[in-house]
Amino acid sequence: MHLYHGTFIDAPAQDELRVRKDHYLLVEEGVIKAVFHYVPEKYATLPVTTLAGTFCIPGLVDLHLHASQLALCGINMDLELLPWLQSYIFPEEARFASEEYADQLYAHFSNALLKSPTARACIFATIHSKATLLLMDKLEKSGLITYVGKVNMNQNAIPELEEDDRAARDTRAFIEAAVEKYQHTLPIITPRFVPSCTKELLSVLGELAEEYDLPVQSHISENKREIAWVKELLFPQASCYGAVYASFGLFGGKRKTVMAHAVHCTEAEIDLIRERGVYLAHCADSNINLASGIAPIQRYLKEGLRVGIGTDIAGGSQLSMFRAVCDTIRVSKLLAERMDDTSVIVTFPEAFHAATKTGGSFFGKVGIFDEGYEFDALSINDDTLIIGSPGTFEQRVERVFYLGNNEAIVSKFVGGKQLF
Amino acid sequence: MHLYHGTFIDAPAQDELRVRKDHYLLVEEGVIKAVFHYVPEKYATLPVTTLAGTFCIPGLVDLHLHASQLALCGINMDLELLPWLQSYIFPEEARFASEEYADQLYAHFSNALLKSPTARACIFATIHSKATLLLMDKLEKSGLITYVGKVNMNQNAIPELEEDDRAARDTRAFIEAAVEKYQHTLPIITPRFVPSCTKELLSVLGELAEEYDLPVQSHISENKREIAWVKELLFPQASCYGAVYASFGLFGGKRKTVMAHAVHCTEAEIDLIRERGVYLAHCADSNINLASGIAPIQRYLKEGLRVGIGTDIAGGSQLSMFRAVCDTIRVSKLLAERMDDTSVIVTFPEAFHAATKTGGSFFGKVGIFDEGYEFDALSINDDTLIIGSPGTFEQRVERVFYLGNNEAIVSKFVGGKQLF
Repeated sequence: MHLYHGTFIDAPAQDELRVRKDHYLLVEEGVIKAVFHYVPEKYATLPVTTLAGTFCIPGLVDLHLHASQLALCGINMDLELLPWLQSYIFPEEARFASEEYADQLYAHFSNALLKSPTARACIFATIHSKATLLLMDKLEKSGLITYVGKVNMNQNAIPELEEDDRAARDTRAFIEAAVEKYQHTLPIITPRFVPSCTKELLSVLGELAEEYDLPVQSHISENKREIAWVKELLFPQASCYGAVYASFGLFGGKRKTVMAHAVHCTEAEIDLIRERGVYLAHCADSNINLASGIAPIQRYLKEGLRVGIGTDIAGGSQLSMFRAVCDTIRVSKLLAERMDDTSVIVTFPEAFHAATKTGGSFFGKVGIFDEGYEFDALSINDDTLIIGSPGTFEQRVERVFYLGNNEAIVSKFVGGKQLF
Repeated sequence: MHLYHGTFIDAPAQDELRVRKDHYLLVEEGVIKAVFHYVPEKYATLPVTTLAGTFCIPGLVDLHLHASQLALCGINMDLELLPWLQSYIFPEEARFASEEYADQLYAHFSNALLKSPTARACIFATIHSKATLLLMDKLEKSGLITYVGKVNMNQNAIPELEEDDRAARDTRAFIEAAVEKYQHTLPIITPRFVPSCTKELLSVLGELAEEYDLPVQSHISENKREIAWVKELLFPQASCYGAVYASFGLFGGKRKTVMAHAVHCTEAEIDLIRERGVYLAHCADSNINLASGIAPIQRYLKEGLRVGIGTDIAGGSQLSMFRAVCDTIRVSKLLAERMDDTSVIVTFPEAFHAATKTGGSFFGKVGIFDEGYEFDALSINDDTLIIGSPGTFEQRVERVFYLGNNEAIVSKFVGGKQLF
């Protein structure tokens, strides 16, 4: 057992930013056992670590990003989703057939993610099993807690990036190799998106998810042209995009599922997402850069959907969840202006809650500093961000998200383990 | 005379990103006299500086920002323009009545601007003459080239931040003090915006602009409620917001003028802006954070308006013109999705051109590396931003704007002088 002393800021409810100054967390085997304002007599002899920063926030949860796209961050920002995938993303992902390239790029990625505000993440790799296992090796060493998907896709890409009829066998072999190998790095079933997968492949993936009891990640209703393609050409009989996944056992229910984007969902799709408890990963920067649009996040929150946040590199240009939280707020303000309705604005506490407690719940009891929750924390030093007076703790945490970068993070704990 | 050797990237035309590898600039008294691929025989004995970075871009021009709001960057992001001014901005600006506070804050500001990608800027201070002169002292020492406005406002603020009937005398005294004192730091007539100024004050400001032949900066058509206020309550007889300024000699023509925002201009206003050659400072981040909306920049460009870019701190949260350029592109993509018209997207070369050549032209022959232009340059080292292959120079400069920060700038020249 160990005591951590500091000022803890978290969002236990959707609209509540909670600040507890000078408190103590009692942590045992990575889990918070109690929170005190004063150390009780019986714990007086326990070791105490006073956290180095000025305050602590939960580690952030990135519910959607593509490790294999790191090299493309901040470039090629001139196309919409489908041509962007064909022109830039698929050729880059095809390079991960080379284990040497994968080894080099994924070393960069793991290092960058470790230094970032992210504690846990749901990650896409590529179709290449060996490269994906290399990524998992590195992530396991980092101490971050992640789900990593070997991507499945067998149509509508480029020849170098399509799986052949060995897709099912390869994916099973990948799962077998990954599922027992790591403590903190778990496989997740990852159809790229509906247009990339034949019905046969989706069917196999549903069976594998069931057989190995694995969660699922994919993309949904991101871009109007993509949605039309799914509806008109690929699955004209499906009631909505999400229903395609659902028909193969890849859409929530007992199958824990996270779907990225949900920019343009139909009413039926929103109902299906809620009914099946599917998590959404809102990726505002990516939805901007690819001109996809603005997801109605406040509406989703009001309707009780589980909305987390993702950076979605390289559609999103930044690996920083600080930026992703601010972009969530920012795009909601443009939606408010467009709709002439300020009630659709996502507040700072709401976006913070989405990136911690909601995203965290995909991983278990994660995302706040309460009894029974895993101890994920970023110790923050905001000295260099403050000009004039520091302001309230509420302002200070907001300022860190708007202006801070990795340098503001002086230490990072994930599942009770200090990573730096 | 001096030769600078490097790879020079600029935007000589609106849609042209020009890359000249391994070229030489001949600079004399701060002005580029010639550009060579090889050094001609007659200049072979001149001193040559090889620029330390991997390439050079023109220094960026920030056409609109509030030095006095630096302490509020990244906080209080929960209100629209008018209540935000009343609740947060006016009380902060009132603090600049204290010369001690001004001295401290403006030292931070000048230092931050010096380290930023900005070479030249149009800056708002506050109503306080002494504080504004302190700011100008510091900016002059920095070597940056700026216009700085003592703000005028005598109604609709808070009592501590309204000028009394000494406004005209104070402003004249400020101009007298500033106009001869500095080489690179020039006064600019600065009515805050129409709602802040009585007709009498606007009239005096027009006369002072004329008498001292000074340029003008202000705000225009930023927020729908602000515009309605100007139209319905303050100047019901004016044909548009801009016409109010025009009626007092504060809107272009022979009076060089820059107006921030222009988010919601009427057709008549757009015509007036074009006819009178008024510069617009597009401030995308601010227009997001205050839920003002998206200015139709591509339309303005097509109609021949002079569109530059501003950070508008602290409506904008970031002092970085790298971010302001990217946000220009980013919001235009959301407008494209909203209008279902990709032709309204602002491309990277267009935004880069706006932040260099167009913004630069407010200061003279500034913003490209051509004969007759002042030598403003940022020498960039992008090593730490590159994962995998560096890509083309076009991609590298795009990446610096999307991912880079001050650390990417290894040296900075303004008007031929090396600032660091």
